[in-house]
Amino acid sequence: MVRRTGRRPGNPDTREAILDAARTAFAEKGYDGASIRAIAAGAGVDPALVHHYFGTKDKLFLASMNSPMDPLQVIAEATEGDRSELGVRLVRTFLRIWDGPGGAAGVAMLRSAVGNEWATKLFREFIVTQILRRAVAKAGLDPVQGRLRVTLVASQLVGLAMARYVIKVEPLASAPPEAIVAAIGPTIQRYLTDDLPGVFPPE
Amino acid sequence: MVRRTGRRPGNPDTREAILDAARTAFAEKGYDGASIRAIAAGAGVDPALVHHYFGTKDKLFLASMNSPMDPLQVIAEATEGDRSELGVRLVRTFLRIWDGPGGAAGVAMLRSAVGNEWATKLFREFIVTQILRRAVAKAGLDPVQGRLRVTLVASQLVGLAMARYVIKVEPLASAPPEAIVAAIGPTIQRYLTDDLPGVFPPE
Repeated sequence: MVRRTGRRPGNPDTREAILDAARTAFAEKGYDGASIRAIAAGAGVDPALVHHYFGTKDKLFLASMNSPMDPLQVIAEATEGDRSELGVRLVRTFLRIWDGPGGAAGVAMLRSAVGNEWATKLFREFIVTQILRRAVAKAGLDPVQGRLRVTLVASQLVGLAMARYVIKVEPLASAPPEAIVAAIGPTIQRYLTDDLPGVFPPE
Repeated sequence: MVRRTGRRPGNPDTREAILDAARTAFAEKGYDGASIRAIAAGAGVDPALVHHYFGTKDKLFLASMNSPMDPLQVIAEATEGDRSELGVRLVRTFLRIWDGPGGAAGVAMLRSAVGNEWATKLFREFIVTQILRRAVAKAGLDPVQGRLRVTLVASQLVGLAMARYVIKVEPLASAPPEAIVAAIGPTIQRYLTDDLPGVFPPE
């Protein structure tokens, strides 16, 4: 789960009003176009209160999506250490979160993301602004090729979440995490760092 | 789209009643447990009419799921020819169907599969009975390892469908099919036919 601030949670109605206004604003204007000021106005509260409850715009976005993880933290963990182990570390971290107590929130997020056009748009913003941009930068990927590389990674990880946690198809659903790391880690590694002949147009 | 038989479509109300009864039966009893006789009884029609409208139980199942493709045909196409090109052929066929007029039905099927527990169960039956069993047999996979191999393939292809057609995240959503074949074909090939150290328990 996205960690709440250590402060008291405040009035739950106010919190929910802010989250509702945030979902609307992020879906309508995108992450970049939605301002804390406009979200506060939508909820009928002072912008300072939004910051007080949620901290940064990033954290407000994650809370509004009920994201089971902070992609910033996942990316930081995965990119720390030997570059040749990037894929294995990313899959291991992903499974630790989804196999743990955050998994239920993850399934709810995916179900919601697929449920209607509005939630789908929010989820796309989530992938682009919270994952894609940061992963390209943090993993030191070529800016031209990096975006396709990261969306390939996203396709495998979203599919893993779908197959293991939503559809629950066996034997993948019950396979030991390390078996999945051994199977899918090299896929992720290849998407991120290997030459991919035929994938990118000749320069 | 699943090809209808060449016969006249018959009474649309009867067709829909049979499809409704089929969805209920397949979700409640699984593919193997649901009989044409019980589905006919549920729809209040003669079993011969079910055969007349839909042909085999397989075809009735695909129609009840609004599947954009007949997995039997996809698997047959992919497994015909050089075994080292299995992954590339499978991704190419998959993209031809989803990039074509069947794509909209595919998105509807995925949205429905994730929408509620009942539809999720139906989709799981679809993967296990229409894809998994046949793919293991047709691709000549080891029966012990084959099931996990095929679910790994399913995870990548379901994720590709999610990222490209449902969430539509760029640049993957607009990438040329042959670039995606070059990127994902080798992943599928490896899942199906390569040694996967660390994935299977030692015998």
